[in-house]
Amino acid sequence: MKKVVILGASGYTGAELVRIISGHAFFQIEALVADRKAGQSYEKIFPHCRHLDLPKLVSLNEVDFENIDLVFCALPHATTQTILNGLPKALRIVDLSADFRLTDPKKYEKWYGIPHIAADLQKEAVYGLSEHYRSQIKSARLVACTGCNSAAGLFPLLPLVAKRIINLENIIVDLATGVSGAGRASKEEMLHAEISEGFSAYNVARHRHLAEFDQELSKAAGTEVEISFTPHLIPQNRGILATIYAIGSADEIHAELNDAYQDEPFVIVLPYGEVPSTKHVRGSNYCHIGVVKDRTFNRTILFSALDNLTKGSAGQAVQNANLMFGFDETEGLMMAPIFP
Amino acid sequence: MKKVVILGASGYTGAELVRIISGHAFFQIEALVADRKAGQSYEKIFPHCRHLDLPKLVSLNEVDFENIDLVFCALPHATTQTILNGLPKALRIVDLSADFRLTDPKKYEKWYGIPHIAADLQKEAVYGLSEHYRSQIKSARLVACTGCNSAAGLFPLLPLVAKRIINLENIIVDLATGVSGAGRASKEEMLHAEISEGFSAYNVARHRHLAEFDQELSKAAGTEVEISFTPHLIPQNRGILATIYAIGSADEIHAELNDAYQDEPFVIVLPYGEVPSTKHVRGSNYCHIGVVKDRTFNRTILFSALDNLTKGSAGQAVQNANLMFGFDETEGLMMAPIFP
Amino acid sequence: MKKVVILGASGYTGAELVRIISGHAFFQIEALVADRKAGQSYEKIFPHCRHLDLPKLVSLNEVDFENIDLVFCALPHATTQTILNGLPKALRIVDLSADFRLTDPKKYEKWYGIPHIAADLQKEAVYGLSEHYRSQIKSARLVACTGCNSAAGLFPLLPLVAKRIINLENIIVDLATGVSGAGRASKEEMLHAEISEGFSAYNVARHRHLAEFDQELSKAAGTEVEISFTPHLIPQNRGILATIYAIGSADEIHAELNDAYQDEPFVIVLPYGEVPSTKHVRGSNYCHIGVVKDRTFNRTILFSALDNLTKGSAGQAVQNANLMFGFDETEGLMMAPIFP
Amino acid sequence: MKKVVILGASGYTGAELVRIISGHAFFQIEALVADRKAGQSYEKIFPHCRHLDLPKLVSLNEVDFENIDLVFCALPHATTQTILNGLPKALRIVDLSADFRLTDPKKYEKWYGIPHIAADLQKEAVYGLSEHYRSQIKSARLVACTGCNSAAGLFPLLPLVAKRIINLENIIVDLATGVSGAGRASKEEMLHAEISEGFSAYNVARHRHLAEFDQELSKAAGTEVEISFTPHLIPQNRGILATIYAIGSADEIHAELNDAYQDEPFVIVLPYGEVPSTKHVRGSNYCHIGVVKDRTFNRTILFSALDNLTKGSAGQAVQNANLMFGFDETEGLMMAPIFP
Repeated sequence: MKKVVILGASGYTGAELVRIISGHAFFQIEALVADRKAGQSYEKIFPHCRHLDLPKLVSLNEVDFENIDLVFCALPHATTQTILNGLPKALRIVDLSADFRLTDPKKYEKWYGIPHIAADLQKEAVYGLSEHYRSQIKSARLVACTGCNSAAGLFPLLPLVAKRIINLENIIVDLATGVSGAGRASKEEMLHAEISEGFSAYNVARHRHLAEFDQELSKAAGTEVEISFTPHLIPQNRGILATIYAIGSADEIHAELNDAYQDEPFVIVLPYGEVPSTKHVRGSNYCHIGVVKDRTFNRTILFSALDNLTKGSAGQAVQNANLMFGFDETEGLMMAPIFP
Repeated sequence: MKKVVILGASGYTGAELVRIISGHAFFQIEALVADRKAGQSYEKIFPHCRHLDLPKLVSLNEVDFENIDLVFCALPHATTQTILNGLPKALRIVDLSADFRLTDPKKYEKWYGIPHIAADLQKEAVYGLSEHYRSQIKSARLVACTGCNSAAGLFPLLPLVAKRIINLENIIVDLATGVSGAGRASKEEMLHAEISEGFSAYNVARHRHLAEFDQELSKAAGTEVEISFTPHLIPQNRGILATIYAIGSADEIHAELNDAYQDEPFVIVLPYGEVPSTKHVRGSNYCHIGVVKDRTFNRTILFSALDNLTKGSAGQAVQNANLMFGFDETEGLMMAPIFP
Repeated sequence: MKKVVILGASGYTGAELVRIISGHAFFQIEALVADRKAGQSYEKIFPHCRHLDLPKLVSLNEVDFENIDLVFCALPHATTQTILNGLPKALRIVDLSADFRLTDPKKYEKWYGIPHIAADLQKEAVYGLSEHYRSQIKSARLVACTGCNSAAGLFPLLPLVAKRIINLENIIVDLATGVSGAGRASKEEMLHAEISEGFSAYNVARHRHLAEFDQELSKAAGTEVEISFTPHLIPQNRGILATIYAIGSADEIHAELNDAYQDEPFVIVLPYGEVPSTKHVRGSNYCHIGVVKDRTFNRTILFSALDNLTKGSAGQAVQNANLMFGFDETEGLMMAPIFP
Repeated sequence: MKKVVILGASGYTGAELVRIISGHAFFQIEALVADRKAGQSYEKIFPHCRHLDLPKLVSLNEVDFENIDLVFCALPHATTQTILNGLPKALRIVDLSADFRLTDPKKYEKWYGIPHIAADLQKEAVYGLSEHYRSQIKSARLVACTGCNSAAGLFPLLPLVAKRIINLENIIVDLATGVSGAGRASKEEMLHAEISEGFSAYNVARHRHLAEFDQELSKAAGTEVEISFTPHLIPQNRGILATIYAIGSADEIHAELNDAYQDEPFVIVLPYGEVPSTKHVRGSNYCHIGVVKDRTFNRTILFSALDNLTKGSAGQAVQNANLMFGFDETEGLMMAPIFP
């Protein structure tokens, strides 16, 4: 059994890590860290975990990292850099924040509005899109899990951009996400009364996940790629659906995606013409991808659905941890979606 | 008082007509027609109307159209042609079905899969987008209200296409709609358990409202226009949000829309950069339009929100009826949105 | 036109007052007060009111009460006492807070945990259950609108307790309410992710509305009455359904309620055996009451449905204001429920 | 590995059985039966199971029961009797329908309106409330799983009634349930547009689960017990919350329930005064029970939350199957609730 610490255990991704790890054969939770809720029982803040035998929440300085094998870090950006800077240098870390996703610290500063203060750690970090960075993740000490929206967009786009099967100049990612991605912080705009029965866009043309799209797509294409990205908020808790408009042959696109993901346990390409739903991946680590031919302009419409808390975050994190420790990549992650 | 008959009174648009007309100063409901529910009280099938003093549902052949001033027809397509063909020729009609929207009967046959059997009536029909066909509607006998999705897309697009402010070749309408648009028919895919906590697309690249987009945009542009249209289903009851991608200057686009709608009571262009929400127009006859500059390729992202049952259907129908009878266009339609 | 000021205009009941008054023939909004949001436009905080021509939000000390005819006060309890104490003594006030509902200041202190500091005002206050205090409200200067839950429970119970048609010793009010009753304050437990797909009870056996039940039922019965009251939270925005268990003949109960409310425009007793739904009164000022015979112990089950923001709060407030100014009691309140 | 057949695999409980069994170490699905959908792939009707390697749906007569170890039967009542009558007599069966829950066929006829046609099978059937019939279930051939509402009510009530800790004459079970309990049949009243934003009661004082309550409580008490039962529908998919009013000491009640369930893995009694939520058991096999003292009449309010599809149906079924085959009772059932 590998001993695990979760930093930021009182948020939704923290809780999702606990849910997944509670069914994992080789990870064992040693400490749950949440500074502002230190001293409270975990079931007090997450009563759905009442049946689990979990340690109390503690503050960071109460943790003895001596015997710890792995840290999952689910803290807000910026805070993350400070805290990871202070941890023992040998510790393996799977970070779920935005702090180590961008290889260029200047890009971080541009998109997040503050200088990066852990440039050394950044050099070590591997981008955590398991299916595309598998070999690097296996030997990484620090893995930076992707943004949930970025994951949804990159799964269909990366293979197509790499092989230049789609036009690089006209890629539109129109996306809708459930509210759990906004976290458990108390914000007026996230109240049930504000969200329910409403649908709208936010951070149009300036969402920070654009920086990840730019970085990863440019890298795959071998040239600068800039996409359009419009996220919307769905009145539901979990799930992301990306609707992607690209210029290219639908047949070729479907064939290429089939090829790219045929051996992947978690990325499933639907039969040509079928469309995925967030409802069909809820609570699971699966990503469903659909390809439909548009009627005009050689355009193809791609769809990608995943659960933002699972494949988009905590599930991806555990998948990466499995890779880092040489476990079966699917360990703890085979739970079927919950429907309805 | 003008005497009104509602055909198809047992559906959601029928109920929305009843709600609006119950607060209208000059329309009075004379008969509520629903063949399969004839004989039942209206409050039996719509208990929220319990406080209204409404006639029982009747079958079509029970109605004496002699003294009737206006028929609202909220029947399924195809059925509509047969029934309207049989009504007295002098009767004024506001039709909410798809049957008289397409001026070319061949287009109707192509998109709806059956021949049009009321070509004579079609010749009389005026497309019911009140703000754009006001003068024709005033003198029309038969008005064909628009598809709810078409309305949401055409409000922002028509002025831009007419003035060639946007590129005609690259228009994408990505749209999300609440479930009431699917009507009250019992379908497995519309069950609460199937819809709630799920988001997906449907009828991709082949939704019938494409025919209306083609017709109206081509007419406005003076040349053939074909757009891309991808509707999604939101787990909520009312509301449509169209997210439109177009090539053109955001500044010019915003200025043109401001200009086009500045005197309109129901179409409101938001300040530059702001985005609308379906939640802010729910239960009302308003359409909110937003314009945001994209970061690449001279692209502009437009948003348009309306309530599919009100401005997208029954509200639009009453607005048209007001025009036909020379009433104040806003009569009965000034109810504020219900929030939250 | 009577000139009206709304205190606490930035909350949900404030917005509901604005919605209703925007359709009222004789009230005109002169000032919208929200100290913490003073200076902002109303459409900034409530974009659904964008089409209305409303004054900016101001702070209390910016209001000249000289020409004001009526104040609607939708402030939190305790704050209300301080502020109403400071207003001109001749001003008519409809208060939507809990501060003047309890005639005995000691009861206030017991249930709200702080001493009452406006005992003089309390003496003037009339309990605002319009249908049961109509004559006193007509001549009142200060009306204290009821708790939303209390309204739902008292409509069916008051006539029965007054006539002793039910046993006074075994009354259970089991109630479920939408989340808008909790207001617009940012609280973790009111986030969409916490509320949606969840149902539970809160403040069991100690909810403050118990004090109103005790007071009003004891007064009606002429003897001390104590009920059991268990509120639940429904994952929806608006609506209260009270399910009431009482010992007594269902036939007599139904007859008595029919008798009590037969001339009331807003309280509707359903046919014997039928049950109401929150969905059938949403956005309206109606209260639907149902009576069903239980199978055992001479028990009857009563149901009462109303919209907490309308009949339970802002609608009730306007109804009371209509009474105070001698307007038709239904003015501005005849909007039909919005369905679906 | 034991070979399993699921009858009625195209419904929600069928899908929940598939979800659970996909994570079970010793059960293997041999056939999925759904007569009307025979020939279709399972992922066609339940795309969330796309990742599982499942057999096609078949009709009953295509199944060779020779090598089958266990049948889960999730068919509608009445149909169930006919079909189970026709199966090989040695086959072990876990039935999820209502057909074998009532030991007295006359009671069945009274509540279900049709005569029971499999009285012989009925004699063999054991009531499937695992925690209370464990030893009988271990040796049973046919187990009749409980109604989902009955399970929610019986968990808290059975130990109290057996020990006469509460008054037998005044038990009220007020209950709210998510919509998945109504199944996947296309019914108007189960449409999203009808359910969402609505809360109401149904089958008041005449719900068929009353028959189970009567039978089980009378048996436990050793005397006739009749309760009051009022189910409500919550606008959510999964979850039942029972709110139970009983006369008796809250302290004694809490102590007795703690005692009764202290060694149970799935039934968790909360600390005194705390209340459960359906959201905290969603997708899991747990039942959470809360006990709160009421303020009057020596009344105690009990709460019980479970997931109707899991502990209330398919989870209970697998738990019973584990008992029947001597597996660890929790095998396949330890998945944590999904939150949010």
